[in-house]
Amino acid sequence: MNQPLPHAALVRQPLPVAVRDALQARFGERFSTSPGVCDHHGRDESPFPPAAPDGVVFAHTTEEVAEVARLCNEHRVPLIAYGAGSSLEGHLLAVAGGISLDLSEMNKVLSVQPEDLNVTVQPGVTRKQLNQEIKDSGLFFPIDPGADASLGGMCATRASGTNAVRYGTMRENVLALTVVTADGRIIKTGTHARKSSAGYDLTRLMIGSEGTLGIITEVTVRLYPQPEAISAAICSFPSMGSAVRATIETIQLGVPVARVEFVDALAIRAINRHDNLSMPEAPHLFFEFHGTEAGVKEQAETVQQIAADNGGQGFEWATRPEDRSRLWNARHTAYFAMLQLKPGCKAVTTDVCVPISRLADCVTETERDLNASSLPCPIVGHVGDGNFHVAILTDPEKPEELAEAETINRRIVERALAMGGTCTGEHGVGLHKMDFLVSEHGEDALDLMRAIKNALDPNHILNPGKIFRPVR
Amino acid sequence: MNQPLPHAALVRQPLPVAVRDALQARFGERFSTSPGVCDHHGRDESPFPPAAPDGVVFAHTTEEVAEVARLCNEHRVPLIAYGAGSSLEGHLLAVAGGISLDLSEMNKVLSVQPEDLNVTVQPGVTRKQLNQEIKDSGLFFPIDPGADASLGGMCATRASGTNAVRYGTMRENVLALTVVTADGRIIKTGTHARKSSAGYDLTRLMIGSEGTLGIITEVTVRLYPQPEAISAAICSFPSMGSAVRATIETIQLGVPVARVEFVDALAIRAINRHDNLSMPEAPHLFFEFHGTEAGVKEQAETVQQIAADNGGQGFEWATRPEDRSRLWNARHTAYFAMLQLKPGCKAVTTDVCVPISRLADCVTETERDLNASSLPCPIVGHVGDGNFHVAILTDPEKPEELAEAETINRRIVERALAMGGTCTGEHGVGLHKMDFLVSEHGEDALDLMRAIKNALDPNHILNPGKIFRPVR
Repeated sequence: MNQPLPHAALVRQPLPVAVRDALQARFGERFSTSPGVCDHHGRDESPFPPAAPDGVVFAHTTEEVAEVARLCNEHRVPLIAYGAGSSLEGHLLAVAGGISLDLSEMNKVLSVQPEDLNVTVQPGVTRKQLNQEIKDSGLFFPIDPGADASLGGMCATRASGTNAVRYGTMRENVLALTVVTADGRIIKTGTHARKSSAGYDLTRLMIGSEGTLGIITEVTVRLYPQPEAISAAICSFPSMGSAVRATIETIQLGVPVARVEFVDALAIRAINRHDNLSMPEAPHLFFEFHGTEAGVKEQAETVQQIAADNGGQGFEWATRPEDRSRLWNARHTAYFAMLQLKPGCKAVTTDVCVPISRLADCVTETERDLNASSLPCPIVGHVGDGNFHVAILTDPEKPEELAEAETINRRIVERALAMGGTCTGEHGVGLHKMDFLVSEHGEDALDLMRAIKNALDPNHILNPGKIFRPVR
Repeated sequence: MNQPLPHAALVRQPLPVAVRDALQARFGERFSTSPGVCDHHGRDESPFPPAAPDGVVFAHTTEEVAEVARLCNEHRVPLIAYGAGSSLEGHLLAVAGGISLDLSEMNKVLSVQPEDLNVTVQPGVTRKQLNQEIKDSGLFFPIDPGADASLGGMCATRASGTNAVRYGTMRENVLALTVVTADGRIIKTGTHARKSSAGYDLTRLMIGSEGTLGIITEVTVRLYPQPEAISAAICSFPSMGSAVRATIETIQLGVPVARVEFVDALAIRAINRHDNLSMPEAPHLFFEFHGTEAGVKEQAETVQQIAADNGGQGFEWATRPEDRSRLWNARHTAYFAMLQLKPGCKAVTTDVCVPISRLADCVTETERDLNASSLPCPIVGHVGDGNFHVAILTDPEKPEELAEAETINRRIVERALAMGGTCTGEHGVGLHKMDFLVSEHGEDALDLMRAIKNALDPNHILNPGKIFRPVR
């Protein structure tokens, strides 16, 4: 290994008094070391034990972020960007202490360019807020990871979710970023042109870097015209395999479906309870179609036929906005509905993505694993992309349950890798997938990643302990 | 500047005898130092004076590429990947001598995965060859830069061209690469999963790196189902501005047009002469629509109405494959047709891309510049993306013409940057856009790029002298 990341960076040091004093003087009440505030910033939606930072700065401008970075870099203090707190993989945990940089108050939509179909926002703007603020423009932002995540966080984890099958992920939809480097310089990556061959793709390098290469302080994303017509449908299937096969045929036929979401029988039970619905407790697909009136009708008819050919039953339409909202609301609250299957539990959420030809095998073999487990393990998936999640519901107080969850997770990830897939489709590596990252890419590719990390953050202040396992 | 690239790397040194002997022994007739072969590999489609390498290796395998890289790295010998030779910006010129690594014999389609809608190829496979070889699969590869470029070269310059408005560029369509690093390691970037959040995006880092960060030896790209229906059309317009406005309205309305190409009156004259056609010598748009029968009809009717509203005349259909081929053949040979407007000339090709809202202004102001020039300057453009090219036809023997071409180019690029655009939409930086790259991104962003270059190629053997202006 040529490019070690020294483990020393992860040995927790007390916050230097000079840093504390400087932040206090500069930010006043917007710098907090109160245990409540620190504790809140040392948690996320992952099952990892909390790790609180030593202090939290609530930044309001790019320049403030740059000042904090310069200070932290000078004193070798860890710096962790914090958005909406919805990470599932421990990204926000201050495993080496340091400063949590809360960007949630940088939440302004800076400029909408309706003619160019793009918008520039501060990183704390959430996706729901964005769509609310631009709804009169006739445009919308499609990326929808379920949680009402911040746009900065969605960049950092290369988020996607429903709609990605049609509109792509954050990778495809970010035009430009403003980024503060580890040493406090402010750079712009990209322009508002749709495409460019001008130099290395710093935008794509920052997207998915999980706060380890820079702090994102502005985001320009593509918008899309609100479709003339939208129609949604649900359909139940006799088995997971048949639902997945219907999806595969839809994709292979090139139907430009906007969403195709898989929800297994257990997740349906959870949703029924949580939302007071009465869907049959069987595997379901949720579809959405975008286009012209005629185009949507044509797509839906094609998909209905494919579903029927695969044993789909009770194909049900939702064309009225309120019916569609109820449907997608049910899908979106699935995560919290599933948590209620086991009161007090945390979910170990797996997140593999495989080539679509292997999806039926992968899901069916996974189902066999899950049937053998004592833990409730509902499955949902953005199956149009070959991506699915198992929420392994565990009691965080019971180490044996966490261990079992990790065993299940490992089997699922190893199966996905063996099938030519990836260890994380959209949640990121965080604290959780470091070893799988090596299995997926190999040591030499990891070495290139570490070389980039060392070049851009030589003092290892940016979100230390994430993505790479340091060398002891 | 923290990350200089030493100018010393560009001082031409003779090829070390040890390297020459080793390549001779290893590659026999597949290593050539003959002046004819070297001269051929020191040229491309750019107007820069040729700069021949000291030798050319015709590689057949990834392992061979790795061997050559290790040898060159050990002896600090420049190494320049060579595909189809169709670069327009001097990428292939051996400005510091060294070895040209010809990958054109690595031209096998390695595996088609029709169920996953992707294909893995060697880097010397050209786009036309690829589409020919997969045509019975019912799939096609849409990226079409005009020239019959190699897939490796198209990755290296982040190519796009017609079709990008619907299907995206190489940035959006490459799933995975095999790359040989400067020190001869072989890495895989990406998997066959559609999306991933597993670590830094090495795939996107290599795409557009112009052979300066690694040598691409395998490429996995997305394929698309051949559309059920295709229809093409041309339409003439009273002015450039009106043609561009029709384009802008089409994009803003969200019509999923597959191609929308602008060709100005002078380029039409060139095409008429070259292809023996008789189109009216006026600005034209060339359209193509992909979809179902009904969908294509609907798109085309919408666009025909938009064209008419903007003064478009003589909207002509081409639905039969042979008519479509003739039409697109005319568009594709436009570059060579334009060169024949001025026998013996070379084209200084500009390649800006602006936000679509600024395209009409940008093209109209550019037209004013060109009218004031004595040089013939036809314009063609992938206007759906905001991207257009001016081919400034110059006599390479007349320095005053080259100087005038550069003056025109500079004005066009500076205007595009002032409008929030990029200095190159799809051709790359090469030897030509180094200073504009700084204007576009700023010194601090360039510094990050140089830091990455230094981290991944510390001896600066990979395509030296391109993208970055070295520090003297």
